[in-house]
Amino acid sequence: MRILTGLQPSGRLHIGNYFGAMEPAVRLQDEGEAFYFMANYHAMTSTGDPAALRENVRGLAIDFLACGLDPAKAFFFRQSDVPEVNELAWILSTVCPMGLLERCHSYKDKVAKGLSANHALFAYPVLMAADILLYDANLVPVGEDQKQHLEVTRDLVGKINERYGEGTLVLPEARIREDVAKVPGLDGQKMSKSYNNTIPIFGAQKKIRKLVMKIETDSTPIEAPKPTENSIILDLYRFFASEADQAQLKADFEAGGFGYGDLKQRLFDAYWDYFAPMRERREELEKDDAYVEKVLADGAARAREEADKVLTRVRKAVGLR
Amino acid sequence: MRILTGLQPSGRLHIGNYFGAMEPAVRLQDEGEAFYFMANYHAMTSTGDPAALRENVRGLAIDFLACGLDPAKAFFFRQSDVPEVNELAWILSTVCPMGLLERCHSYKDKVAKGLSANHALFAYPVLMAADILLYDANLVPVGEDQKQHLEVTRDLVGKINERYGEGTLVLPEARIREDVAKVPGLDGQKMSKSYNNTIPIFGAQKKIRKLVMKIETDSTPIEAPKPTENSIILDLYRFFASEADQAQLKADFEAGGFGYGDLKQRLFDAYWDYFAPMRERREELEKDDAYVEKVLADGAARAREEADKVLTRVRKAVGLR
Repeated sequence: MRILTGLQPSGRLHIGNYFGAMEPAVRLQDEGEAFYFMANYHAMTSTGDPAALRENVRGLAIDFLACGLDPAKAFFFRQSDVPEVNELAWILSTVCPMGLLERCHSYKDKVAKGLSANHALFAYPVLMAADILLYDANLVPVGEDQKQHLEVTRDLVGKINERYGEGTLVLPEARIREDVAKVPGLDGQKMSKSYNNTIPIFGAQKKIRKLVMKIETDSTPIEAPKPTENSIILDLYRFFASEADQAQLKADFEAGGFGYGDLKQRLFDAYWDYFAPMRERREELEKDDAYVEKVLADGAARAREEADKVLTRVRKAVGLR
Repeated sequence: MRILTGLQPSGRLHIGNYFGAMEPAVRLQDEGEAFYFMANYHAMTSTGDPAALRENVRGLAIDFLACGLDPAKAFFFRQSDVPEVNELAWILSTVCPMGLLERCHSYKDKVAKGLSANHALFAYPVLMAADILLYDANLVPVGEDQKQHLEVTRDLVGKINERYGEGTLVLPEARIREDVAKVPGLDGQKMSKSYNNTIPIFGAQKKIRKLVMKIETDSTPIEAPKPTENSIILDLYRFFASEADQAQLKADFEAGGFGYGDLKQRLFDAYWDYFAPMRERREELEKDDAYVEKVLADGAARAREEADKVLTRVRKAVGLR
């Protein structure tokens, strides 16, 4: 079984990304032959800053490797290191009814949010289909927001295979991530860059401690018991602490005598310890560009090998060779 | 100066194509560094028949070589042998406003004519822009119908260079073919496959003679003078005959005593002689697939070299490397 995951290089990762997407994605490397790519072509639909694009991709590569992506198990590469994906996208476009793209929510939503209506944004689902189909991927874990795009992919497979013969493309299955951890942000809403309420995975200790201290709390006095219901501190703590430690913190909330500053410090310590090994690994990787480049080059070489196989088959079927 | 011409592999060429497009295109090889490519990606927007696509491209290659395209002077290749064009198309898409494509007549016209509204048809002007810009072409000879697409190309160059720096892409100039020969068809309308009134350049003698005999004429009796105004026979004859011969045929029209059958036979003979050397060359080429393949492989190698240079520059500018 081949599993494909696309990663968005959209800047510094936060703990919402980590528990919601990154950690579940990394786990897939033990389930089958996992391909991970960093979607820098897609990122160009929303950024026109070349330095930021390059830096975000580099940062994402280091983050994923630090967080456990194992190049001995999985293939990890930059989307643009397999430019063949664009050729498959064109081929898919020739069977893709305009209506299929016009009905995609994500395009409509992004335009409604004020992103400029460029053609790449509109054509995004076709490139995404090519990303998947170029590697004969069988399984694609997607969030609810990408479910429709996977339906587009499956539609396009049907159209290509109907016109050019069964087996021209492999039909992928979606696996909808349902049980995704909901990580609260500093204000209690879902942690999200667009709410400006995030805690990064990596960063300077002082700066992140300061962020944690900003978590919204009520004005219960130090000596009084603290409400445990809907406590952002407790809700975050469970991601980093053992059950025993969680029970202890909760007991201290209920007993009173601890100020929110103290309680937040304990959350911060747990957070800091949790990511310590990854932070250490990240520091090593930061200093070893050659290694990171080698991982990505090897991943791309393997991905291209697979892409070549699939494209040769497709080109023959459609009459380009 | 670099001149780029795209050729549509849309089946057997007729003499309207020859005098209207092919012959003027071939002449460009003496004007500058000429690149000719057969647009098989584009052809996929209207055909889903792989065997026909392959055969049309092969036929077009042979036709152009037989009609004087000289691989010692020009570069001749299949569009799909430089798949890098698709990557540049994606990059252009990221700066291409949807409105620019929505306003293109050719898409609206094709859909109005009943062609299915597929995404490739809509995205065609972006791929055409990439075709041009991938080779830093300076000059693009286009018919009236492609003028708007060249404006799109120039708009996209402006947007890329504004965002990523002057010189990222080269701004091409259009040369509108104004003085294009209007070749009448069998019924007197403009010769066109869609009117089903064409005379092919190449084909079996008997079959084509039969076609020429179908040219519409009036019922003037043999002995009477024939009208020379709007005579399809005379209008076609001028493409194949010397001025002296043209004057002679006109005189014979005016004198009377010649039936339309005789007059058509003289047109046919002139046509047949005109294309005789090309016909001969075509027969040789038909038997020499290896030579044709070598020409196209050499052309593609040269084109890829140029494409690599341009794409390396563009990728660097946009942050993909």
